[in-house]
Amino acid sequence: MITSSLSKMPKKGEFERMPKQNLFPDIVTKLPKADIPIEGIRSHLFQGQNQQFVFMTFEKDAEVPEHSHEGQWAVILDGEIELIIDGKKYIFKKGDTYYIPRGVKHSARIKKGYKDLTLFDQKDRYKVK
Amino acid sequence: MITSSLSKMPKKGEFERMPKQNLFPDIVTKLPKADIPIEGIRSHLFQGQNQQFVFMTFEKDAEVPEHSHEGQWAVILDGEIELIIDGKKYIFKKGDTYYIPRGVKHSARIKKGYKDLTLFDQKDRYKVK
Repeated sequence: MITSSLSKMPKKGEFERMPKQNLFPDIVTKLPKADIPIEGIRSHLFQGQNQQFVFMTFEKDAEVPEHSHEGQWAVILDGEIELIIDGKKYIFKKGDTYYIPRGVKHSARIKKGYKDLTLFDQKDRYKVK
Repeated sequence: MITSSLSKMPKKGEFERMPKQNLFPDIVTKLPKADIPIEGIRSHLFQGQNQQFVFMTFEKDAEVPEHSHEGQWAVILDGEIELIIDGKKYIFKKGDTYYIPRGVKHSARIKKGYKDLTLFDQKDRYKVK
């Protein structure tokens, strides 16, 4: 079983189109869940020595109040997020990446269906659920 | 310093546009390099307990001969990759994801400038360089 998420249709006859399936295959979903205090979030935690990667899926709209912590990098995999970073408002969609440096205040409004992969420059930002 | 890669211009006046900077900030580039036998590849290895994440940048065009291994998932961050998976040809661009299950044969043609983040379902696919 091959899964993919394609943004563009390849040329007919030249390239195949993958069947649209789960964005996160079993090698992702077998990771432990992260304990994130947001309603409607599904997450998978990849633990490194000094950092954490979290695969996130929002099954409900969510608002995350202003906060700050160590550096955070993410790539948006589906849907849309509105981030206010250091007082400026940004919107990010599939394929976009963003970086919030250590200590920079940020808040977010996230729409149902949003998915991303976020890197936290902190070994214990989230615990296993 | 805030870095980002935006695929779409937000509405003027409503959202800010982030300055285009390095796709991989310091919290990525401080990771150790992976020892990957491909000319012109730059990589950063994020080691997990049973899996590895590798940030990859191709500074030259590359061809990767057919091979297979444990499961592999990736999100394309920039540029383009042509993958032949189990005899079928696919093209993936920024924002696309793909999954190649365990044991499925694949080969690749990669264009200079291509960047991705790949998850290998194997703890020792690559060693630190």
